[in-house]
Amino acid sequence: MKKQFSVIGKSVPKIDGRAKVTGQAKYTGDIKLSNMLVGKILTSPHAHARILNIDTSEAERLPGVKAVITHKDVPDLKYGISPARWDENIFCIEKVLFVGDKVAAVAAIDEETVYKALALIKVEYEVLPAVFDPIEALQEGAPLLHENFPGNVNTEIHQNFGDVEKAFAGAYHVRTDQFVGQRTYQCPIEPHSAISVWEGGKLTVYSSTQSPHYFQYYIARQFGLKMGDVRVIKPYMGGGFGGKLEPTGLEFAGAALAMKTGRPVKMFYDRHEMFAHNRGRHRQIMKITTGVDKNGKILGVHADFIMDGGAYTSLGVATAYYAGAMLPLTYEFENYKFDMVRAYTNLPACGAQRGHGHPQPRYAFECHLDMVAKDLGMDPLELRLRNARKPNTKTPNDFKVNSCELEACLEKARELSGWQEKKKSLPPGKGIGLAVGSFVSGAGYPIYRTNLPQAAAVIKVNEDGTSATLYTGAVDIGQGSDTILCQMAAEAMGFTYEQMKIVSADTETTPHDFGAYASRQTLMSGAAVKQAGEEIKKQVIEMASMMLQTDFRDLECREGLIFRKTDPAVTITFAEVAREFFVKKGPLVGKGSYAPPKLGGTFKGAPVGTSPAYSFCAQISQVDIDEETGEIKVEEVWDVHDCGTVINPALLHGQVHGALFMGMGEAVWEEVVFDDKGKIVNGNLGEYRLPTALDMPRVTSELVFSEEPEPAGPWGVKEVGEGATIPTMGCYSNAIYDAMGVRVYSLPLSYEKVWRALKEKREREQQG
Amino acid sequence: MKKQFSVIGKSVPKIDGRAKVTGQAKYTGDIKLSNMLVGKILTSPHAHARILNIDTSEAERLPGVKAVITHKDVPDLKYGISPARWDENIFCIEKVLFVGDKVAAVAAIDEETVYKALALIKVEYEVLPAVFDPIEALQEGAPLLHENFPGNVNTEIHQNFGDVEKAFAGAYHVRTDQFVGQRTYQCPIEPHSAISVWEGGKLTVYSSTQSPHYFQYYIARQFGLKMGDVRVIKPYMGGGFGGKLEPTGLEFAGAALAMKTGRPVKMFYDRHEMFAHNRGRHRQIMKITTGVDKNGKILGVHADFIMDGGAYTSLGVATAYYAGAMLPLTYEFENYKFDMVRAYTNLPACGAQRGHGHPQPRYAFECHLDMVAKDLGMDPLELRLRNARKPNTKTPNDFKVNSCELEACLEKARELSGWQEKKKSLPPGKGIGLAVGSFVSGAGYPIYRTNLPQAAAVIKVNEDGTSATLYTGAVDIGQGSDTILCQMAAEAMGFTYEQMKIVSADTETTPHDFGAYASRQTLMSGAAVKQAGEEIKKQVIEMASMMLQTDFRDLECREGLIFRKTDPAVTITFAEVAREFFVKKGPLVGKGSYAPPKLGGTFKGAPVGTSPAYSFCAQISQVDIDEETGEIKVEEVWDVHDCGTVINPALLHGQVHGALFMGMGEAVWEEVVFDDKGKIVNGNLGEYRLPTALDMPRVTSELVFSEEPEPAGPWGVKEVGEGATIPTMGCYSNAIYDAMGVRVYSLPLSYEKVWRALKEKREREQQG
Repeated sequence: MKKQFSVIGKSVPKIDGRAKVTGQAKYTGDIKLSNMLVGKILTSPHAHARILNIDTSEAERLPGVKAVITHKDVPDLKYGISPARWDENIFCIEKVLFVGDKVAAVAAIDEETVYKALALIKVEYEVLPAVFDPIEALQEGAPLLHENFPGNVNTEIHQNFGDVEKAFAGAYHVRTDQFVGQRTYQCPIEPHSAISVWEGGKLTVYSSTQSPHYFQYYIARQFGLKMGDVRVIKPYMGGGFGGKLEPTGLEFAGAALAMKTGRPVKMFYDRHEMFAHNRGRHRQIMKITTGVDKNGKILGVHADFIMDGGAYTSLGVATAYYAGAMLPLTYEFENYKFDMVRAYTNLPACGAQRGHGHPQPRYAFECHLDMVAKDLGMDPLELRLRNARKPNTKTPNDFKVNSCELEACLEKARELSGWQEKKKSLPPGKGIGLAVGSFVSGAGYPIYRTNLPQAAAVIKVNEDGTSATLYTGAVDIGQGSDTILCQMAAEAMGFTYEQMKIVSADTETTPHDFGAYASRQTLMSGAAVKQAGEEIKKQVIEMASMMLQTDFRDLECREGLIFRKTDPAVTITFAEVAREFFVKKGPLVGKGSYAPPKLGGTFKGAPVGTSPAYSFCAQISQVDIDEETGEIKVEEVWDVHDCGTVINPALLHGQVHGALFMGMGEAVWEEVVFDDKGKIVNGNLGEYRLPTALDMPRVTSELVFSEEPEPAGPWGVKEVGEGATIPTMGCYSNAIYDAMGVRVYSLPLSYEKVWRALKEKREREQQG
Repeated sequence: MKKQFSVIGKSVPKIDGRAKVTGQAKYTGDIKLSNMLVGKILTSPHAHARILNIDTSEAERLPGVKAVITHKDVPDLKYGISPARWDENIFCIEKVLFVGDKVAAVAAIDEETVYKALALIKVEYEVLPAVFDPIEALQEGAPLLHENFPGNVNTEIHQNFGDVEKAFAGAYHVRTDQFVGQRTYQCPIEPHSAISVWEGGKLTVYSSTQSPHYFQYYIARQFGLKMGDVRVIKPYMGGGFGGKLEPTGLEFAGAALAMKTGRPVKMFYDRHEMFAHNRGRHRQIMKITTGVDKNGKILGVHADFIMDGGAYTSLGVATAYYAGAMLPLTYEFENYKFDMVRAYTNLPACGAQRGHGHPQPRYAFECHLDMVAKDLGMDPLELRLRNARKPNTKTPNDFKVNSCELEACLEKARELSGWQEKKKSLPPGKGIGLAVGSFVSGAGYPIYRTNLPQAAAVIKVNEDGTSATLYTGAVDIGQGSDTILCQMAAEAMGFTYEQMKIVSADTETTPHDFGAYASRQTLMSGAAVKQAGEEIKKQVIEMASMMLQTDFRDLECREGLIFRKTDPAVTITFAEVAREFFVKKGPLVGKGSYAPPKLGGTFKGAPVGTSPAYSFCAQISQVDIDEETGEIKVEEVWDVHDCGTVINPALLHGQVHGALFMGMGEAVWEEVVFDDKGKIVNGNLGEYRLPTALDMPRVTSELVFSEEPEPAGPWGVKEVGEGATIPTMGCYSNAIYDAMGVRVYSLPLSYEKVWRALKEKREREQQG
């Protein structure tokens, strides 16, 4: 970074750090309201079945039970991410569609009674044939999940930019590979939890949510309330990673139970129920064809994908789009074809997970390109450099890229990792691999159909001028947005971080913001905060110019001190001026909002998926493979990121570490496994193999900066939270190939799959 | 009221009514923070003693004790209401000055341990002679409390307006009477409670306080913190009545314990400790002399008072000033002399209690005037009418009165009560009495030396326009300010009350306001709210004028609907316009602040005690006295008030009922009684005789309105919360005199005193 900042660019401590480490922070599940009931949802034991009858009478008679509700007690309006695909009800009406589908709910005085009552609800089912594989689901005669979605086709995308066939025809080399991505689950450490309070025609919901505003919108819509009559509050939160972006049965059934009983109702998912609710990573079957010239220049790409969506749309229509739309961000080529079918299956619905739809296609593409490079006898890094996107360019699918330092990322990663030497000299069993990635800094299209700005902020300086409160609807889910938005506010105001306070993520007391998804908050919420801060600074400088009898153009304000630019010895404190402002003019308030500029890239006419700015990164990893067992040990990772101006280096590198950690889990171990009845067999933290701190490799997280900072972001910021997840799986897969000469075509790469590949390779070599 | 309003003037339900009646409202004592300790203060068993030694070692060793602190552990800075009279320390250093003075404090893991530890602290005292009577305290040779206040004189006031001696010399009749007012205590149902949290250099205090801002200021000052580093939050609150206007040992010692232990500390007073902390009504010895002409026109008044202040200043300097300053408000005369000495005694400090200093002098004056009327053979009501203040006049002590309908109050009270007939025809034992009163609508002088505006407000409309949040530092202590400020906001905005939300009384998230005292909030906080609301309305109408392509001057907005004045069929909803505003311009925010205009009336150069506007009232009561026992039964009360425009009639009449109820307690039963060692003998709700609902007489609460509404108040509002307490004691005393021909010269009037007076009267009659 060239420009010197006062507050941003520094690793200030997290604003909520102390509350969290001392245990004072209250998460939704910690909150106790007087008179509060406990609620639970009864779910389906069958993957596909017709509901013949529900008898709740015995459950209702159990002492301590305050309400038992089914679909008859709630509006039958369907919900989901987009009107064309609203396919989910609060409770199933005619059929259940997966093991875990919502059938009824109970509110009672305590947990014990709730569980007893659930067991007393008698549901008669007619079990129907089920389908668990997306390819089977798309075949003629497969069991049909939704009458209005023939052929189990939930979403179908066919995009064609340029002329791929012609490009392939003229190519020096054309290659096709197929890869498979698995179902994984986000596994936030804090379980989903929601407390609904119905009081005087007003519904208040405390929820572990990534988007209080979106929840407010959907809950209001579902129950026919005005948005102003629904208040959603996000308490402290222990992770979301995409899985807490949509309202769940906890909010909908909880609200209905609160309305029926007139008492606060706390609902929660246990760990197994979290897995069953899911909304995690889709399984994708990804065929990629690429044509190159003899120098490795990419001429055209065809991505032909099928996705297992599970029983409902969830956020999957966006996932399907993202899967293909972000592939051409990293490389410059003109001809691109993208085909995608998202199929319904009788499994839990899939949704958004860190990197939203893109890590698996990127895994496929980066593995595939390594193999193209091998075919050409090229260094895979050279192949990337030859094709790497440059700043101020456009993708074939019309994404406008401003800043882009992918080349510099590759060069720096090469240097840091010692790529050149290691490629030649690593001992047997060790290998080094590379992949690149790119991600959006917020989606241009809002999460539901509305013309509201993406973000807004209000800052109020306290009357003695020694502190200021930022009001923002942005959502700190653990990633640190409260901290960096306070830094940004202080920077814009000319104030200090230490004297910033924040009220965030409460739809009633904070201005609207769409929340934490698509890596949007640093850029979008930050832009609104910057504007609000600048409005404060302007007012303070005007007041100071009167107090100092100085032209306001000669005044600057930094870190709580106003001074004359031409005579910096003449100063007055921010506090003194703010106080005088309060005396003379009343509250000192600044406000800001952010709507993205007109963006390119459309899906069915809407500018879905395009973003004001894109991050870029190159990742190199070194692995050590046990030839006997296939054990994959990741020894070291080098991540070099172009994520624009840095607000808080410690938090930024923390995001990279976290993304690498999650990426490693998905790459090596994680997979949600089902039995032949559609029941999850590893829906708990004992058997679903999340990585632990001990699995972490050594990480070098480095940055590159553009000469010209990203024009679309406040102070030139771009995203980092999801971007670092994108290349990880491909990077490891390529390192394993480098180490052992075997290619695993499906995720997780897994010790067993590596072992089997090594065995097959040996057998081939022995036969050959 | 002539003008038609949309939202104000209606008895909307209280905004917190449901939370309170369902038990959901959390008061400070209900709040539990994780890791929270319990703290208590060790107090003095002696009324006056030198501290020779404090040994805390044994208490410190008790398992579960986390801190024991004395004056050595806290700053020795003195505090109090005005710098010249800062006389109180967090803990006593050399001497204790009353039974209950603060000596040490303990924080421990639970209540049981705290009490055990308090018993283990060994304090060696040298007991000193004590003085409990203010007249004795002022005599030469009396025990001296404070070295720097010789003669135990805490406050001395000598004011002389006009020429009283000359007026008396020229009078047709001059009369002097002496009355005594007693010590009473406010007895809020919710005990004092405070939770202090010290986290990262920042102190957060949850407190049952009438003035979070004042607490913030004093706590910051006491510990050398910046105001921005102290946050004071007022949870739901169960009454204050003046007794919760100052920080107590709970806040100061609690903060010190939290700082020392690093853990949240909850402190509370039990009922007896509340009585010992006191800060209730002063005992006053009141000599009044009045000269009249033969028609009963008042020519001059001399009020010569002595006050028992107790051991510290508390808010008593203001009490002393108010005692005399408000007497001339009700009657027009030109010559006024006021002498006051507030003496220190070895009793709990006295402070502000509903009507602040004025109900007792008013009792004295109204009794005295009835006796003047009797001397002249006049009807007491006629005497008042002859002297009653008129609008747009000035008092001899320079209080500027705008609106004043005291004459109309008297006329209406006469009519409603059937005064004329009852004066002639009530059966034996029954009597009817009259008194008038007046009170400030906020004090012009701030509660501590600062030039901050008195009040400020911010309103933020939610993005969908269907609700709006009012941020105000005003303090709802149960009186309903949250409700009426939301009504005022909605009226000013052209919005509906039902869609208003409020965040109040949190020094960090709401703009500054001095809080709930001196009946200031409806006028002062209301003025800031009105301004904020009008700023919203202006922005909404400007946006609507663009949307409707109409001149903004032709648009009006009421109750959420904007319409053309010239064609009311052309409408657009507030919500729609607000939403469009958010889309086009970001957050829709309005702000306002209020500073009183330059006011007359000074005390030592400062405009203490004067107010932008004054309420007036006439009260008539009918009593039934048991000749055998002296039992006083109040049968009926008629209160006629000129309190300006009414925001919420139900809440207004509720204030009148409450004031009459408290006034009746003080008039008939209440008194804090001490033994000869200065120990309270009735410091609990069993023996301190508060009235109950069953004691309430029938109440008729009626209003009169000025032709021209009060110009100083928003929409013409004035005060009512304290005003109705003012005349009550005098009114009952006069009714007793009317019934039985006996005059009780001290409060409480009490069954025993009436019985004694009747006995003496019979004896006199038998002798005569």
